[in-house]
Amino acid sequence: MSHTVEILSVGTELLLGNIANTDAQMLSQGLSELGLNVFWHTVVGDNLQRAEEAVALAKKRADIIITTGGLGPTCDDLTKNVLAEAFGRKLVFDEGSAERIRSYFNRIGRTMTDNNLQQAMLPEGCTILPNDWGTAPGCAFEADGVHVIMLPGPPSECRPMFQYRAKPYLLSLSEGVIASHTIKLFGIGESTMEAQLRDQMNAMSNPTLAPYAKEGECELRVTAKAAADEEAQALLQPTVAQVRELFGDKVYGVDVPSLEYVVIRDLKEKGLTIGTAESCTGGLMAKRLTDVPGASAAFRGGIVSYTNEIKAGVLGVPQDMLNRLGAVSGEVAAAMAEGARRVLGCDIALSSTGVAGPDRDDRGSEVGTMFVAIATPEGTRVRALHLGARPMRERLRTQTASHAFDLARRYLSGLDYGD
Amino acid sequence: MSHTVEILSVGTELLLGNIANTDAQMLSQGLSELGLNVFWHTVVGDNLQRAEEAVALAKKRADIIITTGGLGPTCDDLTKNVLAEAFGRKLVFDEGSAERIRSYFNRIGRTMTDNNLQQAMLPEGCTILPNDWGTAPGCAFEADGVHVIMLPGPPSECRPMFQYRAKPYLLSLSEGVIASHTIKLFGIGESTMEAQLRDQMNAMSNPTLAPYAKEGECELRVTAKAAADEEAQALLQPTVAQVRELFGDKVYGVDVPSLEYVVIRDLKEKGLTIGTAESCTGGLMAKRLTDVPGASAAFRGGIVSYTNEIKAGVLGVPQDMLNRLGAVSGEVAAAMAEGARRVLGCDIALSSTGVAGPDRDDRGSEVGTMFVAIATPEGTRVRALHLGARPMRERLRTQTASHAFDLARRYLSGLDYGD
Repeated sequence: MSHTVEILSVGTELLLGNIANTDAQMLSQGLSELGLNVFWHTVVGDNLQRAEEAVALAKKRADIIITTGGLGPTCDDLTKNVLAEAFGRKLVFDEGSAERIRSYFNRIGRTMTDNNLQQAMLPEGCTILPNDWGTAPGCAFEADGVHVIMLPGPPSECRPMFQYRAKPYLLSLSEGVIASHTIKLFGIGESTMEAQLRDQMNAMSNPTLAPYAKEGECELRVTAKAAADEEAQALLQPTVAQVRELFGDKVYGVDVPSLEYVVIRDLKEKGLTIGTAESCTGGLMAKRLTDVPGASAAFRGGIVSYTNEIKAGVLGVPQDMLNRLGAVSGEVAAAMAEGARRVLGCDIALSSTGVAGPDRDDRGSEVGTMFVAIATPEGTRVRALHLGARPMRERLRTQTASHAFDLARRYLSGLDYGD
Repeated sequence: MSHTVEILSVGTELLLGNIANTDAQMLSQGLSELGLNVFWHTVVGDNLQRAEEAVALAKKRADIIITTGGLGPTCDDLTKNVLAEAFGRKLVFDEGSAERIRSYFNRIGRTMTDNNLQQAMLPEGCTILPNDWGTAPGCAFEADGVHVIMLPGPPSECRPMFQYRAKPYLLSLSEGVIASHTIKLFGIGESTMEAQLRDQMNAMSNPTLAPYAKEGECELRVTAKAAADEEAQALLQPTVAQVRELFGDKVYGVDVPSLEYVVIRDLKEKGLTIGTAESCTGGLMAKRLTDVPGASAAFRGGIVSYTNEIKAGVLGVPQDMLNRLGAVSGEVAAAMAEGARRVLGCDIALSSTGVAGPDRDDRGSEVGTMFVAIATPEGTRVRALHLGARPMRERLRTQTASHAFDLARRYLSGLDYGD
């Protein structure tokens, strides 16, 4: 049976534009992976009449309604009251939920008000979805042929409540398990990737293959449905292998969070250290490497040399090279990486220099002209980039840093890298 | 007359969760500032029947309908067709729009297909909203007592199309102008700020005062409505002055993009230069300073000293100080800033050291213990922070960098700073 889902979000802050509806995005992604069709997102404010009308409509057109928000004391538990009423359920006090709320307040050291205990009133006969990430419990029930799931609004609660509470409930509706792997790629455009896969994607039903693009990187999510996890994994493996084969060393990992994570992981495995010398990326490379928890085991430090004096004085880039070529050149990128390796005492060093805009540099190099380099015990290699002036400054810097990380992961994996 | 608005977004990518509905957020914020009440957000996919149903419902309950998406050739101009049909308007070819589309393709050097010219078909008698940021023109018309405004979906087009095309149209409905100022604060919590302003905010109707919080900073937007801009400004000034008086030197600027922008601007005005020495922030301070276009006139560079060897070897922090105190201490923060000032040859230097987590450091300092320092020609000052372990790593780092920038802007403005 094919389910149709409506996501109904309740919250005036959404209608004022104070926040974006990232709950709806997160849920939509998760539900699509479960093979459920999301046909509507609806947002109403903390307003009884409009919430009632929205619920009546959703009840008519969807067979799964997932609500977010409107569960807390500040909105009088609007969502819960309206849905209980629409589906003819009484609200009853649940002592277990009350106890969890009391102990939550104890744990964070705040005083609980009576309002908060209102949150322990739940639709009679519902499945309670305990909230370990906040106070308002979620709940689920089936009535009049419709499944209703209520989740709290704050994204830091909604996300785990979906993952660990709603998803198992939804899986029980669909008999079986869903498993997925995410294949990460660098160095290929989304449209090229899609063009190479389109026929295959259209022909597949289980597993399915879905492309995503972000910040100059691509990923492919492979999702399979089966009676048990083992069987789902068996369905996934051939597709993962096929994609790896098709895209070769453009695949930098499966189920890994980021390119910088892979670099830090590989360095730690090999017992090597890294450092950075940055001009156009201005600290972004160091920042991204230190975003990885535990980076201190491999990352020693970095130099942001935003002026030629610092390139020469701290990194030891020859002054006559800077005079001759300006800062934006492959030779300078190489000298910066070598300087960083020496000054920071690390095994490998990455560097960047280029024009991030908004204006050309003083030698007339175009915005988007970038050089990244890697210095290693085996020598130094450079990659020249022509990213064009159309991406914004932020994006140019992100892509440049990613290219430097790509040099590092290729070097660490024994692949071809740089020139 | 009080208008009620529905924002109707058309796009399967929203229902799959590929992107969040940031258009709806941006529009909601802009519409609220115009004094228009947004009561509903609705999202449907590229599906004729559901789009028709959504339009019929919006027509019944709202008197302004703003659509986003569904205007391009890939979805057969779904939105335009459905709305024209619902309001009994024929689509007619607009030569001016066709010409703009042709010249857009010329400019970006791509080939135009016949599909693209479909975008020049527009509802008869509408106000055309020319799109200088992409190909699909927007449009607006009034029919059956409802104002309809159609905007393209990509956020990079939707945002300027609202700002420069739809907003003037909406202003003409409301007779008069809207003007606003944004007051930026640092060093005060959102709840404290709101508590101090609540009575005042509730009592105000023109201008209005709206608080926003993000990333450990607060802002207050003051918005006034009047017949002419001069009059609106006259309404705004007393409130801006009052807020400045109330929050004193916690206000770091009005209508400025960020704390780092203010630091770079003030440095440039005074002809001074800055540099950074970062441990826990790992490059984020340098990255944020170089996010400011034109930063190179004031920012010289930075050292990311993620290990004690680099703190000692590159920045010259005394080894016995590191042995005695560990890296996380006010003395080390001060020595780092002084070292950076010397090594980078800048007028002032900022530093950070602390425990960003997930684990305590090797001396048992708690996650969230941070020190920032500023070294200037007049000496060195330190600020100790206890941010707690509850914020995530990313957030701790952001707040720490902001505190360092706050030291700099206070120093540059002649205010009290650090200890």
